[in-house]
Order: sequence, then C-alpha cells, then structure tokens
Amino acid sequence: MKRQSNKPKVVIIGGGFGGLNAAKALGNKDVEVILIDRKNHHTFQPLLYQVATAVLSPGEIALPIRRALHRYKNVEVVLGEVAGFDLEQKNVHLSDGAQIPFDYLIVAAGARHCYFGRDEWEAEAPGLKTIEDALEIRRRVLLAFELAERKAVITGKPEPVVFAVVGGGPTGVELAGAIAGIARETLAEDFKLIDTRNARVLLFEHSPNVLATFAESLSQKAERHLRELGVEVFTHSLVKEIEPGRIKVGEEWIKCDVTLWGTGVSASPLGKALGAELVGRASKVRVRADLSIPNHQNIFVIGDMAFFEDENGVVPGVATAAMQQATCAARNILRDLKRESRQAFKYVNKGSMATIGRHKAIAQIGNWRFSGFVAWLVWMLVHVVSLIDPHHRRLVLREWLWSYFTNQRGVRLITGSVRSGTTEARL
Amino acid sequence: MKRQSNKPKVVIIGGGFGGLNAAKALGNKDVEVILIDRKNHHTFQPLLYQVATAVLSPGEIALPIRRALHRYKNVEVVLGEVAGFDLEQKNVHLSDGAQIPFDYLIVAAGARHCYFGRDEWEAEAPGLKTIEDALEIRRRVLLAFELAERKAVITGKPEPVVFAVVGGGPTGVELAGAIAGIARETLAEDFKLIDTRNARVLLFEHSPNVLATFAESLSQKAERHLRELGVEVFTHSLVKEIEPGRIKVGEEWIKCDVTLWGTGVSASPLGKALGAELVGRASKVRVRADLSIPNHQNIFVIGDMAFFEDENGVVPGVATAAMQQATCAARNILRDLKRESRQAFKYVNKGSMATIGRHKAIAQIGNWRFSGFVAWLVWMLVHVVSLIDPHHRRLVLREWLWSYFTNQRGVRLITGSVRSGTTEARL
Repeated sequence: MKRQSNKPKVVIIGGGFGGLNAAKALGNKDVEVILIDRKNHHTFQPLLYQVATAVLSPGEIALPIRRALHRYKNVEVVLGEVAGFDLEQKNVHLSDGAQIPFDYLIVAAGARHCYFGRDEWEAEAPGLKTIEDALEIRRRVLLAFELAERKAVITGKPEPVVFAVVGGGPTGVELAGAIAGIARETLAEDFKLIDTRNARVLLFEHSPNVLATFAESLSQKAERHLRELGVEVFTHSLVKEIEPGRIKVGEEWIKCDVTLWGTGVSASPLGKALGAELVGRASKVRVRADLSIPNHQNIFVIGDMAFFEDENGVVPGVATAAMQQATCAARNILRDLKRESRQAFKYVNKGSMATIGRHKAIAQIGNWRFSGFVAWLVWMLVHVVSLIDPHHRRLVLREWLWSYFTNQRGVRLITGSVRSGTTEARL
Repeated sequence: MKRQSNKPKVVIIGGGFGGLNAAKALGNKDVEVILIDRKNHHTFQPLLYQVATAVLSPGEIALPIRRALHRYKNVEVVLGEVAGFDLEQKNVHLSDGAQIPFDYLIVAAGARHCYFGRDEWEAEAPGLKTIEDALEIRRRVLLAFELAERKAVITGKPEPVVFAVVGGGPTGVELAGAIAGIARETLAEDFKLIDTRNARVLLFEHSPNVLATFAESLSQKAERHLRELGVEVFTHSLVKEIEPGRIKVGEEWIKCDVTLWGTGVSASPLGKALGAELVGRASKVRVRADLSIPNHQNIFVIGDMAFFEDENGVVPGVATAAMQQATCAARNILRDLKRESRQAFKYVNKGSMATIGRHKAIAQIGNWRFSGFVAWLVWMLVHVVSLIDPHHRRLVLREWLWSYFTNQRGVRLITGSVRSGTTEARL
C-alpha cells in the first residue's frame, strides 16, 4: 500500500453495526481509516427474517457501506476478504495477497450461525445471517408450496407442507411465526388445489423455554402467541440429525419439506487468527476493560466477536452492544492520540424485543415487560427509527403498512435456479 | 394427472406477456387452463435493465404468476420445466417425468439472448433476459468499481474502469446509457481514490447504426444522445472474440473489465420439440394466419417464439405483439368451442421506444417520431401504466422520481459470492 500520510492508520474489519459505527466515530477525525468488508453493503440484520418471508426486498434493509460513509473524507472503504494478520509488522493480509498496514486495528467481523460441528447440515437447513441466506430461505419456503401444488395437480392428492424450524431463539421464533402467517393468510387464496392453511410449522427448542433469554413470563406468552398462530412448539426437543426430507428429534424421525436453522452462533474465525484467548462454544475473543486484547494495546475486538464480562455479567451479542463498543473503542484510540488515559467499556442495556407473527411481540426494557400488539408497535417503531438510511426508513414503513392492511407480501419471488434446490431433488 | 372435468383442457407454456395474457383471456371461460412456467414470477422485461443498473429492485418488476391469475377460478399455475411433447397423445412432458394432458396447447416460451454458436462467451459476457441475469450484471458493474478502488488503495495508482457492451439494439443502448449515468453521476462522490467519471463505456454495433429498427433520423439522434452521456459508440464493429479481460473487435484486441451482451435472440428450443418449421437464425416457429402450426390445429405458438408474416411484414418480438397474439389465440380456441370459424391475426403496431440514459429517449409511434426529454416522459408514462400490478406501479414511479430528483440509486447491492465472479479472478 503506497498511500502516505502522517496520520495514524486505523483499519476496521467488518461493516456491520460495530464496524460501521466505529468508522463513523472516527469520521473526520485526525486519523486515516480503512474499513474492509467482504460485502459492499451493511445489512440491517434484525429485519433479515422479513426478507426471508417475502415482506421486504433486500434493497430495503441493506445499504452500500461506501454510501453510508461517503461524507467522511478520511474513511476509505475496501471490498476484500481478510485472510490473516502479521501482528508484529502490523499488517492485515487480504485473500488475494495484498497487505494493508495499520497502527490501530478494530476487528468487528461478527458471527455466523454454526452447526455445532455438523457443517453438512447447512445444505439441508440454511440459517439466516446474510441477504443471500434470506433469499435462499425465501426460495425454499415459496418453492415448497409450489411443489406441493404441482404434485397435487399431477396426483390429485393434496398434501400439507411441513416446515421444521430448529431453535427457539429470536431468529427461530421470528421465522416460525412469519411462515405460519404466510401459510394461514397471505398465500391462502393463491393456490387452487392445496390449502396452504393446512401447512404445519414445527418449532424445536432443546431447552425448556423458547426465547429463554427473556423473563419466563414473557417466554411463556411468546409460546402462547406462537400456538395461536398455528405453530407447533416443541420444547425439551433436541434435533440430532438433519437429512433430506426428514429430521431426527430425540429418538423420533419427523418428515418435513423444509428445515430452517435458527440457532447456534460462532464468532468469526479471525479471532483465532489474532492468536487471542477464545471463550466458550462460540469462540469469542476475550477482551479487556478497554476492549483491546491482551498483549496488543492497539488491537480492539468489538461486537458479536467479543467476549466482555463485567460485574453485571456478559454483554450479549446484539446490535446495540456492538454499537456501544464501537464508540468506546474509537474514543479510546482518539484518547491515546491525545495522550489521555483510556476508559473502560460500560454496557447500557436498552432492552430486548422479539416479534411473533404479524402483529405480536414481547419486549423487556429495564423492569418494564410487555407483550402483544403494543409490544409489536414499539418493536416496529424502534426498528424503523434505527434504520440508518432515511430512504430505507420510508420504504420499510410503507411496505409494512401495505403488508399490514392488505395482508399481501410484496416480494414473493423465487429467484435462483429451480433445479439447484434440494427440495427439487425430492420431487 | 387425475383431475377430471368435462371442460376442454388448455395448457399454456410460459408466464411472459404472451402466456399470462392468454390465461387472462381464457379466465373464467368454459375451459380448464393450466399455465406452466419454470419461474414462479412474470418478469416485466422492458425494465430489467433498471434492475441491472441498480435503480429498481427485482420485486418491483416481477409479479408471482399465481398472484396475477388468482381471481380466475379455472386457471391453475404449475411450476415446472417442460421437457417435450407427445403430440399424438396430446401430452406435455415435464422434466421430472410427469405428464400433463391437453386438448389445446398455447406455447409462449419466449426467447433468450444467444451467442451465435459461441456459448462459451456467456460466462464472460452475460445477457439480460431474466431477474437472475439482471442481478449478475448489477453485481459485475458495481464490483468492477469496487475492485478498481481496492487496487488503487493498494498500488496507489487509480485506473479507469472499462465497460464493453456488445450490440447496439435497445438492450445494449439502455445498458450503455445507464452505466454511463452511474459512472458519471451516481457513484461519483462515493469513491475516494478512483474517479468513476473516468470510466469508459464502449458500445459495439456491427451494423452502420445503433437502434437500426428505428427510422434513421432517430437512430442518429440516439447515437448523439449516447455520445453526450460519454458512451463511445463504435458502429461497423463486429465483436469476434470474448475472453476474460479483453474482447476482439475486427482485428483489434481491446482491454475491458466488464463485458455485457446486448444482442442475439434465439427462440425457445421447445419450437424444435414441436417438430414445426423453424425460420431464420433465431429459430422461430412459422405459424399460420390463425397462429396455429401446420398439421396441428390445436397447437398455437405466440410471442417471441412465433414467426408471423403478413402483407405488412414480419411481426416484431415485442411485448405488445405477444399480448395481441395471446388474445387472438385464446379467442380462436373459444371460437372453436362455439363452432365459429377462426380469425386471422392482425398486428396493430403501437410504436416503439428506447431510453438513452437518465432522461432521454427516442420514440416512433406511427408516423410520429420524437426524441429527447419529451420522448423519455412518454416512455416513463407508458411503462408505469403497463405494469400489471398497481402496487408495483406506485413503487416504480416512486423509485424513479426519487432516483430522478436525488440522482441516487436505490439498490446498489452486490449479492452473490464475491469470489465466484470472473472479475475477481483477474484482480
């Protein structure tokens, strides 16, 4: 890299909530910033499931990183895949062999869903972390109904479509609720032979409760809301095998047309490449109070990749935590440059929410706990407000209102090859 | 297939402008209709180039076929790929072995771009016929700028991006004009090191004129508009070879980052499967005056697949012609059932238009010829009005107004793998 300036170089890896906010916090400051991401866009992950269930278009929840940062003259965006680091020489290595030097490094490469060592399950049971994941899930869900109709045209015998969702965390619950809504309401009048309302949506959670990170009263309400939507909720149910067309729960094999993966989090493998201490099954990087890693004052790890524990417990892997850490890490770099002492990270819990179906949610904000339609209104408001781009905000709000009042989904497209799906192979 | 009814069975192949309109014309009539398509959605092809150039989202120009036809109780939609026919037994064979019987058959399987026997060019120079094509072109165009910027960050030497568009028909002209617009205006302030305004857009047409189906005065205006946008137009220029990173025009090799294919039309191979007479390089099916094929009174071929010639000449492969033929074929079937004699197809030429860049167009409606901004306004109006779905109509109009006044593109996403592209391999 040949650019020369006397300003300290800060390299940020990842354009998610952490990386993007770190870049903004360093924007137009006296540093030179390079943000590297594999994708050209920031994805508003909390709404991914709405792309997967055909309410929103990809363009409505994704924003080109370059666009989000274009007014900061000192921030350069580079599309590239990080292969590793030379921590002594302070270089980031890209997968094409290029090297990018840094004075400070902020690693915010996030997490992906993981299959607990059973990576072969991914082809059968896609998870939901990227726009591509969401489009694949949308494709499989819509295709399942199409194939059932086609089978009914040819055999004369309509059979219900069966969806299995693995994991009763926020993603699994959102997916299950939304799919039940599609089947019960949106698609009901489009098909002639099959009755989409007969579709079964099975949700499997190995622990005693869905949404177990919420207060128990709320997770019980969530379960009740799910059942009202027609989702069959199975708690204490560990999924042991996933095969084409069936899954094994406990000792029982269950036939299903589409299996979706809504559980398991594994931090980016870049944590390992940093040579830092990794914590837990998710392999997160243990960070110090100032968010840097031991032995490397100039390297910060933030967001879903970071394991941060203080007297209030472990900071959860949510967008608001990543954004708060981004600001803290950026400020600590600027403090270094002003020769001020660094500050420790303090997590401010802004509460958590999860939607269940088309107009129910549960919310827990401080000691305030509520559920149902009001919680859903709050959920909607918070998400519309936190969308970065004003154009997106208007678009999403419009889509939601349209979808809410007409009960139609805007984006019921099956893209990608009809033949490439595993579902097709079973027809 | 086990469904039983005494009504005549009409099978329609294809959910484009022809197939969809044939189904509508037979909707709620005394026949049983099955429409078969490989995709679950109708694509509004005239606006595909706007998806390819990041103005519109796929969901804005595609409509689930099932949705478009859901109010016709006698129309069934089947997702499937037609493999062939048994014309004696009157059966359509699907690729999975299923058979669908018919009394009448309307084949409206359209056309694809073709590479004149050089299919190996497709990987290097994608064409524009489907949503997937449009997303691939969008990916390559945006990626080319990203890779140029990354190269500049690493080498310190910014180099202009070079786009080559093969073919000066409507598709080639629309793509070239829109890409020039992106480079000159939309992206100009997003990149720090490269100046996207230096991008070169080369348009190669082997004949003496671009848009050669228009009056010569109009095609000269179009060429002038293109040059004003910064497109370098090369007429009398035959592209002889396409390789990664370069193309051969006449005897000269030209370096380019992205090559796009905007020429060549080849009718669906189902024409051959019908055993009918095929005409010309596009292998269209010669149809009789009533749009049926010789020896098979009960089989109609319409739209881009059909070769129809009368005293006014050959009917062009445009959406309005396909829609008119759809109505004619459907009516001829209904006339048969009422024992009335069939009517011959009469093409009513409603004129043709092509856009050049962000707010210019040329139009030829009867003897009326005009160009520039007024033609663009007419183009916009006609396309907004002819979008099938009112929700889409509002969406597209809104996106266009937004894009027109802010000069921002809504959907600048690079989806799909960064690593899978041929562009990446050259970095």
